[in-house]
Amino acid sequence: MKETLEQKRQRLLGLAKASVSNVYSTGEHSIIQAIAAYNDVEKTINLLHERLEEWYGIYFPELRLGSQATYAKFVHEFGANKKAPDLNQLKEVVGDAAENIHRQVSTSIGREPSEEEFKALKELASVEIGLTKYRDELGSYLEKSVTETMPNVSAMIDYRIAAELLGKAGSLNKLALMPAGTIQLLGAEKALFKHLKFGSKPPKYGVLFKLPQIGNARWDLRGKIARVYATKLAIATRADAFTKNNISALLNESLNKAIKKIQENAKENPGKERPHFEKRQNFRGGHGNFNNKSRRRR
Amino acid sequence: MKETLEQKRQRLLGLAKASVSNVYSTGEHSIIQAIAAYNDVEKTINLLHERLEEWYGIYFPELRLGSQATYAKFVHEFGANKKAPDLNQLKEVVGDAAENIHRQVSTSIGREPSEEEFKALKELASVEIGLTKYRDELGSYLEKSVTETMPNVSAMIDYRIAAELLGKAGSLNKLALMPAGTIQLLGAEKALFKHLKFGSKPPKYGVLFKLPQIGNARWDLRGKIARVYATKLAIATRADAFTKNNISALLNESLNKAIKKIQENAKENPGKERPHFEKRQNFRGGHGNFNNKSRRRR
Repeated sequence: MKETLEQKRQRLLGLAKASVSNVYSTGEHSIIQAIAAYNDVEKTINLLHERLEEWYGIYFPELRLGSQATYAKFVHEFGANKKAPDLNQLKEVVGDAAENIHRQVSTSIGREPSEEEFKALKELASVEIGLTKYRDELGSYLEKSVTETMPNVSAMIDYRIAAELLGKAGSLNKLALMPAGTIQLLGAEKALFKHLKFGSKPPKYGVLFKLPQIGNARWDLRGKIARVYATKLAIATRADAFTKNNISALLNESLNKAIKKIQENAKENPGKERPHFEKRQNFRGGHGNFNNKSRRRR
Repeated sequence: MKETLEQKRQRLLGLAKASVSNVYSTGEHSIIQAIAAYNDVEKTINLLHERLEEWYGIYFPELRLGSQATYAKFVHEFGANKKAPDLNQLKEVVGDAAENIHRQVSTSIGREPSEEEFKALKELASVEIGLTKYRDELGSYLEKSVTETMPNVSAMIDYRIAAELLGKAGSLNKLALMPAGTIQLLGAEKALFKHLKFGSKPPKYGVLFKLPQIGNARWDLRGKIARVYATKLAIATRADAFTKNNISALLNESLNKAIKKIQENAKENPGKERPHFEKRQNFRGGHGNFNNKSRRRR
């Protein structure tokens, strides 16, 4: 029996739907969304924390605590009445800073918050605490699923950086088909096009800069180390996407060897001092003078 | 006995501290922080909701719900397994859209989320729900304290707009000392300086644009209505800050009379059609061509 036009339409529509479903059937998209949510939540925590400190500053401007989480906890627990906190209770929340705070409390120039003001503040602090908790939960979900999806890559770099690379590439397959040079510059698209259009210095790393091994390295070695990471990552992503072999031990060994070699070379050769303009305009560098010509003219 | 230098220092330090405390002793600063927090939280809700819809779109791309809150609730309640929801339960959460969604569920091209994915999504939805709840609480705190601090102003305009005006001015006293023209343009500083520097059209309203009576008015009457509001607000703020009399009934009456007059005048005079460039660049207008010269040249 011949297919009618309507039947054909339905069949093709079904095929199209199936292929869309198929693309979204892996866990990768969920990872990409999760890392974006993670970054969103982190941004949110910072935004709300700034507000909390500014607001609570009306009542206790002298308060200085090392971490955002501790500050939020302090406001949540003791924010209502600064005179009340018992030294031992205080110690449980803020640790060593307790005695210092206990002293400041009596001389503080801030006023006591009214009951309603404190209620609003306390809720703000608890929203921040809740968001921090959610961020950590999201982190452990990410860690688990990234390690499953990309075992070789996540053995080499932090799972969050691996997830961001995945997000920039769009899918594991796409990431695996990228040459090392592209992986090295994922996330540095803006600087790359500045380079191509205006002749500024080419970027040396994108997302990879977040790796402490690169970010904390001597400035003139960073590009070299990023290059090594990128080449090894290119191999790791291919293993994760296609062969599914676990070659992480082998890769990590050769990675460490290559980095060691770079560092030994660098020891013999003390390197030039970082030029002044390098300090001003690094690869993320705002709206500096990226035009070579105008720099020369000055 | 003569004061020693150290005693004098202590005394003056005490005075300075007292005067700082004094400035912060009113509820105004708390209102200013609260409205800023309100705006921050609203921004946050939008940011996280966008993420939620994008993420849940992997599993149920056909889902369309009118409000953000309903969407978040749906994900929180039924997100795990689309096939499960009972029609009656569904109706409780999404109302009239229930039947439509019930139909879409069976033909959806999205896949089911895994348990962990759903846990992360559900938490995201619940974070959004929590933030929405907090925003509403903050709103009712604001409503109460703004009505207390500025009874005349808040009888005329929404408490959130009143709080924003207060925030832009810095304190109730400062706001009360402003001429009507300044109050009218609070929040339009950028457009004002564009006008002064580049000769663009002067702004007609700042924060006041959020008033539905202005935002929804005929475009060529908006400036006039904003002007009327500003003059009455200038009187109201002075009453709130200095005399503490409640003159809101009187003010509202004369306000309504003035607006009615503007509208009646407008009826007789149908007004010119809105010129094309007005549509493109209104007072908030991004980076339009604000330079008169270049506009003329084209």
